[in-house]
Amino acid sequence: MTTQTRTRVAVNGYGVIGKRIADAVRLQPDMELVGVADVVADYRLQTAALQGVPVYASTPEGAKAMRAAGVPVAGELDALLERVDVVADCTPKGVGADNLERYRRAGVKAALQGGEKHDVTGHSFVAQANYASAVGRDFTRVVSCNTTSTVRTLGALHAAGLLKKARGVLVRRATDPWESDHSGIMNTVVPERVIPSHQGPDARTVMPELDVVTIAAKAAHTQGHGHFWIVELTREAHASEVLDAFRAAPRIALMRTADGMIALNSTIELMRDLRRPRGDMWEVALWEDVLTVEGNELYYAYQVDNQAIVVPETIDALRALTATADAGESLRLTDETLGLTDDFLRPQARALAPA
Amino acid sequence: MTTQTRTRVAVNGYGVIGKRIADAVRLQPDMELVGVADVVADYRLQTAALQGVPVYASTPEGAKAMRAAGVPVAGELDALLERVDVVADCTPKGVGADNLERYRRAGVKAALQGGEKHDVTGHSFVAQANYASAVGRDFTRVVSCNTTSTVRTLGALHAAGLLKKARGVLVRRATDPWESDHSGIMNTVVPERVIPSHQGPDARTVMPELDVVTIAAKAAHTQGHGHFWIVELTREAHASEVLDAFRAAPRIALMRTADGMIALNSTIELMRDLRRPRGDMWEVALWEDVLTVEGNELYYAYQVDNQAIVVPETIDALRALTATADAGESLRLTDETLGLTDDFLRPQARALAPA
Repeated sequence: MTTQTRTRVAVNGYGVIGKRIADAVRLQPDMELVGVADVVADYRLQTAALQGVPVYASTPEGAKAMRAAGVPVAGELDALLERVDVVADCTPKGVGADNLERYRRAGVKAALQGGEKHDVTGHSFVAQANYASAVGRDFTRVVSCNTTSTVRTLGALHAAGLLKKARGVLVRRATDPWESDHSGIMNTVVPERVIPSHQGPDARTVMPELDVVTIAAKAAHTQGHGHFWIVELTREAHASEVLDAFRAAPRIALMRTADGMIALNSTIELMRDLRRPRGDMWEVALWEDVLTVEGNELYYAYQVDNQAIVVPETIDALRALTATADAGESLRLTDETLGLTDDFLRPQARALAPA
Repeated sequence: MTTQTRTRVAVNGYGVIGKRIADAVRLQPDMELVGVADVVADYRLQTAALQGVPVYASTPEGAKAMRAAGVPVAGELDALLERVDVVADCTPKGVGADNLERYRRAGVKAALQGGEKHDVTGHSFVAQANYASAVGRDFTRVVSCNTTSTVRTLGALHAAGLLKKARGVLVRRATDPWESDHSGIMNTVVPERVIPSHQGPDARTVMPELDVVTIAAKAAHTQGHGHFWIVELTREAHASEVLDAFRAAPRIALMRTADGMIALNSTIELMRDLRRPRGDMWEVALWEDVLTVEGNELYYAYQVDNQAIVVPETIDALRALTATADAGESLRLTDETLGLTDDFLRPQARALAPA
């Protein structure tokens, strides 16, 4: 594959999601990371520069700050946009929507993140569910971490003909591990005031056929989100059938308390032991030995790494927008290059289900 | 009411629950706290002695430690048992079961706590649900905090003819606020390995007719338990009907995020502002403006003060065992002396429903 045929990618916003997506883009044989852009010059951008990533400034002030911090400035954002086919927009909530007109003027496609509203792009994306409908579009929105996990797991049950309706309680992390300036919480639980919380309706922007309601609360930890689901199946089933449905779906990895995976922090340690970059967990980590079926009711719990789960989805979204691969090819390539598994400790070969 | 007609009560085990029950007994016009017993001589027993409560030693070693700590020892446990009609056993899990034979030999009745198994007493108690069936019994078991809250709330829906089935996710506190030697957790969430968690089946020891399943997890806070419920109603209903059912039931207090009750720690502060002893919340604190009904599905969230919720239930259990009042009289007297309400900020007069 020559440089000319590679999709030229920019990452705008080099924060918790953007830096991970930039790394993932660099692993893709069919993509070239032309550069990243941001408005600040802190350790994240300095690290990018150290690693040889071309850094662009989104504002003149940003450029000045970068030069002051010793970050070589490759140019301003508009110059970057001239050099790429597609942008992964990882700017803070609301900024992506503001950027859309700029991308449109520059004639570049863009995948936004889940902080933006569905209406901004008119299309919301989870690779296994609706890759095909994003092919060739100018813009899509990769839904948020919790919604991605919801569509992955309920999509798996739906694909197996098992899903009637699902009700979930989401115990969200207080804040990200790296944060101290955002509003974390200590020693309490904060229920979301509105039921349903936004994740349920958001999942229906991807799969309108889902009968799903979510209740959310924030708890006093930083180690990702815990999900607890109560699902009515279309029929009585065995737990093994449900597990087979989850195994057959992409980006769900099984784990077991019997292996010491007893809490949200267990997987964090396991990801480090598995030498995952930054300890990232791109899969939904689902407890095989907590999952319970009684008659036509299914109960299960899983964990979401809110910093990492949307990374493979975004890579796929870039391919869908640029129409450079079909769903099966894209998921396989993304998952192989990143190193996703269907079971952290007992991985099996798995055929990826095309969307 | 003369001293002769008062029920003579002992509290065995003066820990987090025992000390609260001892205080509550002292508030009851029809009860006399003859003494409390324990095996240690720490600040709790020293405080009891300071407040003039007769302290008995459950073991010779305990007596020695008490004397060394300057706690006057009124006698050994057997002497205390000779002087009372009934014991509130608040000893650690499993010890209550061991004590039962001692109570039987002494000819005293006993209310055990929810750490013991149902089979130990053959009767499990929540005042509003089954007071009558405990009247005159030798022994009962006041179910645990989470189970008590479950029976109170689902019992209210059942009494209103609204309950078909209920599925709950319980986000439990890591450990009690005062503890440091027990296994708390930090910065994580620990799902209970078995679904259903024990609270659902335990609620059925009190109300066998309940269709209830619980999923539980521990989170990284000490401020009581958060419950999130998904309930199928017998019919479509308005939220106002459900709220009326909760208002009509004993020991459920409504609160609102609009009043600043936005998290588990909000109520803790409110209880202090209301000058509750130790900041105790005996009621289930249920969010009126989070509660949502869609068709025949009901969603709601509430908070349980695990240190306090069983206190009124235990007082009622003592009256039931000694057959000194009927359910309506007992609940009214308990709630008036302690100061329970149906709404922390907008209390209304309420007729107590007899069991």
